Parts: sequence; structure tokens; C-alpha cells
Amino acid sequence: MEPSFIKELSGIVGTDQTLIDTESLACYGYDSTPEHESRPGAVVLPGSEEEICRILALCHGAGVPVTPRGSGTNLSGGSLGRPEGVVIQTSRLNRIVEIDEENLTATVQPGVITSTLHKAVEAQGLFYPPDPGSMNISTIGGNVAENAGGLRGLKYGVTADYVMGLRTALPDGSLLRSGGKVVKDVAGYNLNQLLVSSEGTLGLFTEVTVKLIPRPPVKKTMLVHFPQLEDAALAVSRIIAARVIPATLEFMDRVTIRCIEEYAKVGLPLDVDAVLLIEVDGHPAQVEEEAAAVRAVCEKHRCSFFQTAATADEALKLATARRVALSSLARMKPTTILEDATVPRSCIAPMVKLIQETARKYDLTIGTFGHAGDGNLHPTCLTDERDTDEIARAHQAFAEIFEAAIAMGGTITGEHGVGLAKKKYLPRLVGESGLRVMRGIKGAFDPKGILNPGKVF
Amino acid sequence: MEPSFIKELSGIVGTDQTLIDTESLACYGYDSTPEHESRPGAVVLPGSEEEICRILALCHGAGVPVTPRGSGTNLSGGSLGRPEGVVIQTSRLNRIVEIDEENLTATVQPGVITSTLHKAVEAQGLFYPPDPGSMNISTIGGNVAENAGGLRGLKYGVTADYVMGLRTALPDGSLLRSGGKVVKDVAGYNLNQLLVSSEGTLGLFTEVTVKLIPRPPVKKTMLVHFPQLEDAALAVSRIIAARVIPATLEFMDRVTIRCIEEYAKVGLPLDVDAVLLIEVDGHPAQVEEEAAAVRAVCEKHRCSFFQTAATADEALKLATARRVALSSLARMKPTTILEDATVPRSCIAPMVKLIQETARKYDLTIGTFGHAGDGNLHPTCLTDERDTDEIARAHQAFAEIFEAAIAMGGTITGEHGVGLAKKKYLPRLVGESGLRVMRGIKGAFDPKGILNPGKVF
Repeated sequence: MEPSFIKELSGIVGTDQTLIDTESLACYGYDSTPEHESRPGAVVLPGSEEEICRILALCHGAGVPVTPRGSGTNLSGGSLGRPEGVVIQTSRLNRIVEIDEENLTATVQPGVITSTLHKAVEAQGLFYPPDPGSMNISTIGGNVAENAGGLRGLKYGVTADYVMGLRTALPDGSLLRSGGKVVKDVAGYNLNQLLVSSEGTLGLFTEVTVKLIPRPPVKKTMLVHFPQLEDAALAVSRIIAARVIPATLEFMDRVTIRCIEEYAKVGLPLDVDAVLLIEVDGHPAQVEEEAAAVRAVCEKHRCSFFQTAATADEALKLATARRVALSSLARMKPTTILEDATVPRSCIAPMVKLIQETARKYDLTIGTFGHAGDGNLHPTCLTDERDTDEIARAHQAFAEIFEAAIAMGGTITGEHGVGLAKKKYLPRLVGESGLRVMRGIKGAFDPKGILNPGKVF
Repeated sequence: MEPSFIKELSGIVGTDQTLIDTESLACYGYDSTPEHESRPGAVVLPGSEEEICRILALCHGAGVPVTPRGSGTNLSGGSLGRPEGVVIQTSRLNRIVEIDEENLTATVQPGVITSTLHKAVEAQGLFYPPDPGSMNISTIGGNVAENAGGLRGLKYGVTADYVMGLRTALPDGSLLRSGGKVVKDVAGYNLNQLLVSSEGTLGLFTEVTVKLIPRPPVKKTMLVHFPQLEDAALAVSRIIAARVIPATLEFMDRVTIRCIEEYAKVGLPLDVDAVLLIEVDGHPAQVEEEAAAVRAVCEKHRCSFFQTAATADEALKLATARRVALSSLARMKPTTILEDATVPRSCIAPMVKLIQETARKYDLTIGTFGHAGDGNLHPTCLTDERDTDEIARAHQAFAEIFEAAIAMGGTITGEHGVGLAKKKYLPRLVGESGLRVMRGIKGAFDPKGILNPGKVF
């Protein structure tokens, strides 16, 4: 990168907030996506919206690519910069600007950590439901850019459902305001929802206003063992058909259970096909009834064990089994390919079976866990990047899994984004018309194509 | 319109479904928007998705404007065609394709009447919350195109919150599929939510898949009188601050109350500033507690009368007062200008006062009612199109009301759309950047600009 350009960058954010040393750039050469690496030319850490706009205007003028980055928990390569480009790291913009109890909104800077927002609003009896697995390190800006999901999506929806207002720096450095604290706004196109899940390709959020809801007064946490996979899947469908919408309805398969037990020793059985973690929340009377309904459905579908947490500590312990699923799997092998194929929830059983058969067919270890109530599964392949033959088989297996998800009316990514990792599957899903309008939208926001180039399509 | 072109049109849909006689075109020269009239060149009533695509391809090739139309309940001129253009009337596509109890979705053709869908899903213990005032005649296609709101928006959200999948005919006649029955999908840009509220300018829906939820087991309906406006507004804020989210929290001002009472004789008082209609729903125990909390807040804020419906019939009677508000106002004068300025709910009191002062300043009769919990008010000017002086004053008054809404962090339209009626206010709200990207998006979908031209911007 030209020294004169670096000088202009550091003139905006300060020399101490402009990183160009080899060690720093090496750290920014990765996010949480396996098999992808790309060191940026420079990393800047702006301290204000104005600085972000000025950096963008500078890069826009010079035709230099820009990649926004929160905490780098991205699972599709979306936060990786380019050697000839600049990464804008938002971590210094970490202020909760306001919690508005009358309008039930929180306004935050993009670098606020998700769980920090949780704690702040819960202290006031309020609730911000989206809780991605990475919530203790991920940022709200990144959550919005990726439309992060989480364990409470079934009842409460995902990040998109909570975004009310955005301030967005556009690629040319101009500022776009969309939405705000109004709960209804149909003036012009819905730019808010278009920007959510745009994966840093349309603009860079400088402020986010999210909707809050009253904190549910109580919850009940249940852990259920099913000797047979089909029974677990059927229970998921039947719980919802019984008009109960649990906050959480999570699934772990045999491979995942085994890895969790080896790692965390939480007392999971090694001889069952599936474990479900189920949480119902809300008014105490409703929670009692819903928990009873859940139990009845699980027993009818031949669960071998049904445990209800008696205390908050016990609930936390039960939920831990699911929360450590990914780290338990990840420690088994050097490379973890975590996917998020998603199907209508009625297709959970055929999808899990297909994943298991595909793993056998290609001689791979794939553990599957995830948000069964959302039909959002995480088939996780435990492998080693250096084993080129196994990696090739893994790719072949996932191609078949995605193809099956599409055939079932599902999608290639429920919550991780397309980024670099799933670009090749997008055309099959959205078709020629879809690609054409998406490219047109990109052109409308970023005619010079400087923002996160090469991502999504 | 050229006879040869008409012949091509009727070749697609049949002569009986191609209207070109003066009487028919006169009927299609209006929708529900005052002061706007425009007779289309022809009206076609396609019977299938394929016919819609063929009509669009034909018009696209010939450069003929196309306007989609449901039941013509549009309040911003969005369903008015052009003299040189074709209106595509979707009423023949009125089939509920599927109600999927396992995935909690309904798939419908665009011409299905909103309340028809309500009845069909409620018969199965399910619930489709969006309930615009026009629900007995409006179509789901129109609801999606406008992102229709309704009386249950506070707790349950608006149409956008329920759209999961769309099949959309693009202006060139190609077909776009977006979303589906998956509750999570982040593959590429969120075209679903961009198409919702695009007011028929980006595409024409040929099939809509909506989310359903379990039907709330019970509800409680309350009607509350407030001698002072400020107290009513404060009660709205305090109910929500008490962590109660009513399904419905509706407001009627003195002018509206008087008109309703004159028309419907439901026993409303003529000496109070405001009446609130409040409904809480859900689990019986929760409903009891929430109703008690609502009552406590209203009494603390000096309500003069608090009535709880004892039976379903009584509840219907109380709700009728609000449901007939618009027709009660509309019968007073030949022309009714119904607006939908929307503010953060904390600004309800200043907004109502400003509306009342503006009415006095311009010597106008404006009744205000609406969705107080959403900050979504309907200031309704009772006037006469032929009185050009009064109409000019009305326009001046609304310009000031919209300006004030924007200044309070609100919007020019909460649920009626921009269409023709509010085009001039949009630039002030979304700014130069907003307009630029919206025009770019329009170009990405409709480079020849044939779909509903002249609307929105």
C-alpha cells in the first residue's frame, strides 16, 4: 500500500489507530472461517461516524477496497480484507447511546458486544432476544450485517426482526438514515431490511436502533433424550402442532453428544440418537402448561429421559450442553467446517438422515446440532485442512447437503451468510433473476464496487 | 390503446377478461384516494401466474405501463393506472393454496381477501395477525405491496413481519422466487422484505407464503374515557412502560368521538378529549394480570370511565366504536383526506395537540384516531374537493403535520404508502442518499420503468 495513502488514512484516524505492521495484519488475515486467509493492506480503527465517512470517501476516491469488521466471528469469510484494501475495524465504537424505556428501543454504536447489550437492557427489565452462539464476542454491527440468529429464534425471531433504525455510511462516504424509533414506516423502499444481512457489501453501519421487548418473567429449561432420531424429529413438529412455541428448541445428534460428553462431562447419554434442549418462557401459568404439553409430546414419542431444571443454576447447566457443542466438536480435529443448511422444520428428520448418510458415503465425521425448531441445522465436519483428499470429500458432501436443502424448499445458509464460502451455491438457490436484481442493487449502492468486493456474488 | 395491442392482451387472458369499455374503465379510474383520478387504457384479469408473466412480457416489449391492482383500497393512489397503460387486476387469483400446520405457514394467491385468510386459519386454531381497516375487502397481494398495518400491530407487527416467501413476476415477465417456508434465510440480499412495501413498482406477486402463529386463547377488550388528552397519551406510554404490550391500543379524539356517536350511537361520551380502546390477549392468567395493570394505569391517569367487556358480543360492540371511526368521519363531508403521520409513541401527546392546533389555524375539521401504541395516527380532514380554498388550506395543514412528524423522528406514512399522494414529501424524509439508492433499486428491477411509473418517487 502506498505510503502516501497510509498517511492520508492515519491523518483521519491517527497513527496509533492505523495498523500496517506485519504482526497486526497477520492477525487480521483470518476470521472464523476455515480454509480462508487474506491479509489486508491496512487496518484502521475509527473513533466516530465522521471518521468512517471520511475513510470511505478517501478509499472511494482512490478506488481502494474496504471491508468492515466487527469481532471477526464471521463464518463465511465476510470480514476478510484484501491485500490491496483497507479493513475498518469498528471495536472503538462501542457505546450504548441510549436505552429508551418509553419507546422500547436501544440505540448503539456498531462495535457494542451483543451480550453487553443483553446485560444492559435486562438490568432494566427489558429483553433483546437475538443471541448468536458468538454473543460474548460478536458485535451488534456484525450481527446486523449478517442477520445473526441464535438459540431463541423460534419464538423471538432473528436480528432482522429487531432492527428499527440504521445510520449507514455509504461507499462514497455519504450518510444514509433509514427507519428510526417508529414501529411503522412505509415511506419508500425498506432500506433497513435490505441493509440487514447485506454482509458489508452495501454500507457500513455507524449507529443501530433496535427494538426491545419486556423481559419474559420466567422460563423452564428441559433436556430430553431420544433413542431414535425419528422420534426426536417428530416431537419437534408435534410440539409446534400442539400450538406451543418454545423460545428454544435445540437438537444434538449422536456424534455431537459424544463430543460434548468427552469435553464437558455434563452427563449426556452415549447410547441415544438425539438430545433436545427445550426452553419455554413467559407468564408463569403459561410456562407451566407449555412445559407439561412439551413433556406429554416427548413421552408420547418415546423419549427415554426427560429432565426439567429445578433451579436457574440447573437450567444453566442443561443449556451448557448445547452452548459448548461447537467447541466440543472443534477440539477433536484441527479444522472444523461448520455449516448452516436450513430446511422447513417439517423436514428436520429427512435432513438429519441425509447428512448422516452423506457422512458415511464420503467417510467423514460430521456432527449435527442446531436450531431444530427453525429447521436450521449445523452439520459440522471435523477434518484437517492439510488432508487434501478428505477436504475434497467434505466439499463434495456439503455440495450434496446444500442441494438436498434446496430441494426440500430450504436454503444454503440460515444465519452465517454467503461471504466467500458459499458464493458458488448462491446462483443455484436464487436463480438468474435473483442474481440479476441483487447485482443491480449492489450497483445502486456501490457503483465503483469498493465495499467488500468479491463477497456474496 | 391500439386495437392490435388489445388483441394481443385478450389473446393471453381471453376477451371476457379484458376490459376496455368506458363503464369499466371509469370504475377503475379511482381507488380510495381522494383528489386522484386516472382511467387506465385497459384492465386485464389474469387467471394464472403464467398469464401474469405473459402480460408483463408483452407490455415490457411494447413499453406499455402496467399497474397492479387488488381491491383498490389503496389510500395513496398506488393502484391507479395510466391512460396509456394496463391495469392487472388480481381478483381471480383468490385461492388459498395451502395451510401448513407443521410449518405454521399459509400459501395464498395474491387476490385472496385478508379476512378470508383470517377465517380459514382461525378455524384451525391458528392466527394471521395483520388486520388493516379494509380487511374485509383488501387483498393479501395489496397488503404485501403496501405493508399494511392494522389494529393489532403493537403486539404482533405488520404484514412485513409475516411474509416468508414470495413468487414475484418481474417487469420483463421473468419469475423471481424469494424466501419460502424456512424461518431463517440469509442467502443474498433480503429481496422478500424489499418487495414488501414496494407499492407495485418492483414486481407483481403471484404467490405469497405467510407465517402463522397459534391463536391467542383469550382476549379482554376495554374502553376507557379520558377528560384530558394529555392523560390519555400518558396512559399509553405508561402501560408500555409497565411492561404490558396490548394487542390493540387505539385512540380516538373529540371530533372522532362525536362523529362516531352521531353515526353509530354506541354510547360514547361527548364531553371527553379522548377514548382509548385497549385489548390484551394471550394466556388467561396473563390476560387477567395485564388487564388489571392497564386499569391501574388508566385510573392513575384520571380516566373518567373504564369498561371491560364481559362477553364476546360486548367486546365486539366496544371494538365497533373504533372500527366505524373512518366511516363515521367520512359521511360528514363529501371528501375525506385520511392521513397516517407516524411518530415514536412517546410523541403521541405533542403530535395530537399539534394536529388540533393546525386544524384551528387553518380553520379545518380534522378528526384524529389511530394506533396510539404504534405512534401511528390518522388525522382525517373532512372537506369538499370542490372547495378549492379549503382544499388548499388542508394541503398546507398536512404539509406542516408531516414536517412536525419528521422533526419528532417520525415518518410521513406509517401504513398507507407514498404512491402519488405523498411523493412530494419523500425527499424531505429520506434525503438525497435515500432517493439515489431507491432510484437505483428501481432501475435494477425495472430498467425500462414500465411498472407503476410515477409512483413513490
